[in-house]
Amino acid sequence: MRTGSATASEDFEPPALGEPYLLTPGPLTTAYAVKQTMLRDWGSWDGDFRAMTADLRRRLLALTGDTKSEFDCVPMQGSGSFCVEAMLGSFVPRDGKVLVLANGAYGLRAAQTMQYLGRAHTLLDKGDYLPPRGDEVAAILDADPAITHVIAIHCETSSGILNPVAEISKAVYSRGRKLLIDSMSAFGAIPLDINDIRYEAMVSSANKCIEGVPGFGFVIARKSELEAAKGRSHSLSLDVHAQWAAMEKTGQWRFTPPTHVVAAFLEALRIHEAEGGVAGRGARYERNRDVMVAGMRALGFETLLSDRWLSPIIVTFFCPAHANFAFDRFYELMKEKGFIIYPGKLTVVESFRIGCIGRMDEHVMRRVVDAAGRSLAEMNVPDAAPPRTALDERAKLAA
Amino acid sequence: MRTGSATASEDFEPPALGEPYLLTPGPLTTAYAVKQTMLRDWGSWDGDFRAMTADLRRRLLALTGDTKSEFDCVPMQGSGSFCVEAMLGSFVPRDGKVLVLANGAYGLRAAQTMQYLGRAHTLLDKGDYLPPRGDEVAAILDADPAITHVIAIHCETSSGILNPVAEISKAVYSRGRKLLIDSMSAFGAIPLDINDIRYEAMVSSANKCIEGVPGFGFVIARKSELEAAKGRSHSLSLDVHAQWAAMEKTGQWRFTPPTHVVAAFLEALRIHEAEGGVAGRGARYERNRDVMVAGMRALGFETLLSDRWLSPIIVTFFCPAHANFAFDRFYELMKEKGFIIYPGKLTVVESFRIGCIGRMDEHVMRRVVDAAGRSLAEMNVPDAAPPRTALDERAKLAA
Repeated sequence: MRTGSATASEDFEPPALGEPYLLTPGPLTTAYAVKQTMLRDWGSWDGDFRAMTADLRRRLLALTGDTKSEFDCVPMQGSGSFCVEAMLGSFVPRDGKVLVLANGAYGLRAAQTMQYLGRAHTLLDKGDYLPPRGDEVAAILDADPAITHVIAIHCETSSGILNPVAEISKAVYSRGRKLLIDSMSAFGAIPLDINDIRYEAMVSSANKCIEGVPGFGFVIARKSELEAAKGRSHSLSLDVHAQWAAMEKTGQWRFTPPTHVVAAFLEALRIHEAEGGVAGRGARYERNRDVMVAGMRALGFETLLSDRWLSPIIVTFFCPAHANFAFDRFYELMKEKGFIIYPGKLTVVESFRIGCIGRMDEHVMRRVVDAAGRSLAEMNVPDAAPPRTALDERAKLAA
Repeated sequence: MRTGSATASEDFEPPALGEPYLLTPGPLTTAYAVKQTMLRDWGSWDGDFRAMTADLRRRLLALTGDTKSEFDCVPMQGSGSFCVEAMLGSFVPRDGKVLVLANGAYGLRAAQTMQYLGRAHTLLDKGDYLPPRGDEVAAILDADPAITHVIAIHCETSSGILNPVAEISKAVYSRGRKLLIDSMSAFGAIPLDINDIRYEAMVSSANKCIEGVPGFGFVIARKSELEAAKGRSHSLSLDVHAQWAAMEKTGQWRFTPPTHVVAAFLEALRIHEAEGGVAGRGARYERNRDVMVAGMRALGFETLLSDRWLSPIIVTFFCPAHANFAFDRFYELMKEKGFIIYPGKLTVVESFRIGCIGRMDEHVMRRVVDAAGRSLAEMNVPDAAPPRTALDERAKLAA
């Protein structure tokens, strides 16, 4: 078993079992100490575990700058998408109408969720990566007074774009509507302070920027919205009000919580705090991104997005135009070298993604770039330049 | 860290961290080897993890005796109740009607789920512990031709009763209706072979008799029902058909799976198989129950149920009538001695529960009884006999 290490850089070495780094947007590579906490069992009814749940809720709330105790945190079993559905089903009244802002898979999934709920919604679909802008949102709200809520994706992992939630929030509240935010892959590394950006509720999950292991997510919502959510949910399991009310009353999760995952998350929160919270975590991810993007560009790879829209979470690269390049082979070569990368999710051009989040630093990112260079050489791809069409795609963003 | 142990009895010693045994119906005490598998991270998209998911589905299906490949297994994120909701929302048509057989909290929760779904249902509520019998079910089905499905709770953990699912199944199919089973706390230790008991679908979860850690559950359903479930679910996250179709197509879970919990479960399945599968696991739990119940009765404690209905999963005892007995104090005294017990869930009389499942054997159960005896002595409770009203309660069952 690995024990405490001497230098900060060693802290980012992989654990003893030698598995690859996960350059994916969650599940991601977690600290060994996080996983070690899972070496025991907890009774979910017992006071020890109830204290852990209370600690988790308090620590998460503190990340939002909620000094006036206007918000509360409700953890919810399942994946992040379960939380998005729980949020939409609980905070949008049955006679409400949602404007879904989409520029990728997660925005479209929110729209699909509204379809399942059978509640009114309208979709602004910006395609693979163009950001929904404040003035567009304002125009849609002006044109459709029936819209009560807007849902925005903070970081759309499909492309890696960091959407402009601050200007979206301004547009929403200037029109007297309410904002819900899917901050799945951003919360904990990118500020979402309620004193700076107004919103009613947001969701994220354990296995993203807090660097826990997957198994639950959480809703952070204005208490007045939590109270108003009573009786609204389409689902017993995903009823945020019921989960909140039960937790307030008993200190327990309504249904069996993923006890080990919760314990791991508390350790992840302690490490997050020791790193300097949102600012410290975000700074490391930005360095990860900058080092990795610079290195990949030096190899000839091009990013889908211009620098302005690049998140420090995950970056999309165009696949090289060279005939010898095949993503499946590149994936295996990178995996052999200890790095699991992520396939692309664009509909128009071939791409792949590299995540910047998880228990890794710029030293690791240099090794990622080195591995990418060696993989290209092994595939006999002398030039990682993207195809012409890909560059045309990118030009749209500048336009 | 604990290493391999020399004797079978040592295998049931608690792990090195010295936490108490969980005498609760899940989360429960798991093998150290199960938890150790969680010391690494997996990419959920990667082939290694997809192979693990396929292995998990295959191994679970094998426990049902599905030799003709008529069934399939669909794991689902969340707690067991998420799976019950997923099953009801996916297999009951929107114009169907469900007869819910309840004799405790989990049956009532199924009825509450139907309420959320807004689909027709009728409830046979047998109170705290009386079993729903085949002839009662047949009579209700005869009287109400609109009923399309029946849901039964295999082991109702509220009281610990093992419900007669075989005779219920016969009644359901003799009337041409369909049976769904919540086998949450029974599957893996109590046979539910599709060749012996007919049903369309059943659910259970990772942290019950297979002895994994909590974080997901699974639906095992007839393939024809899985196909027919398309478009029926009220929930994107809990759509069993969509989860199944995506898994069949890509080998992946639709949304982020609890990777560590899945890895732990595979190890739990290996241990389950090594113990002799359902028969071996069930036999150990029966010994656990027999030793524990005999010892508790010798102390003066009385079980709620007569022997015929006692499951090898969890047993309800009446609280002693003696004025010095207080459950909270008893709980703490037992916890100090290394055993976490479970509060009762009866509405009429004071009770508590002791689970027989998890990584423990009869030697551990003897220590449980010893701890209960010492705890009574410390509370100055000389006689653990239940109050008169409790015995009256029990007489109802014999009647």
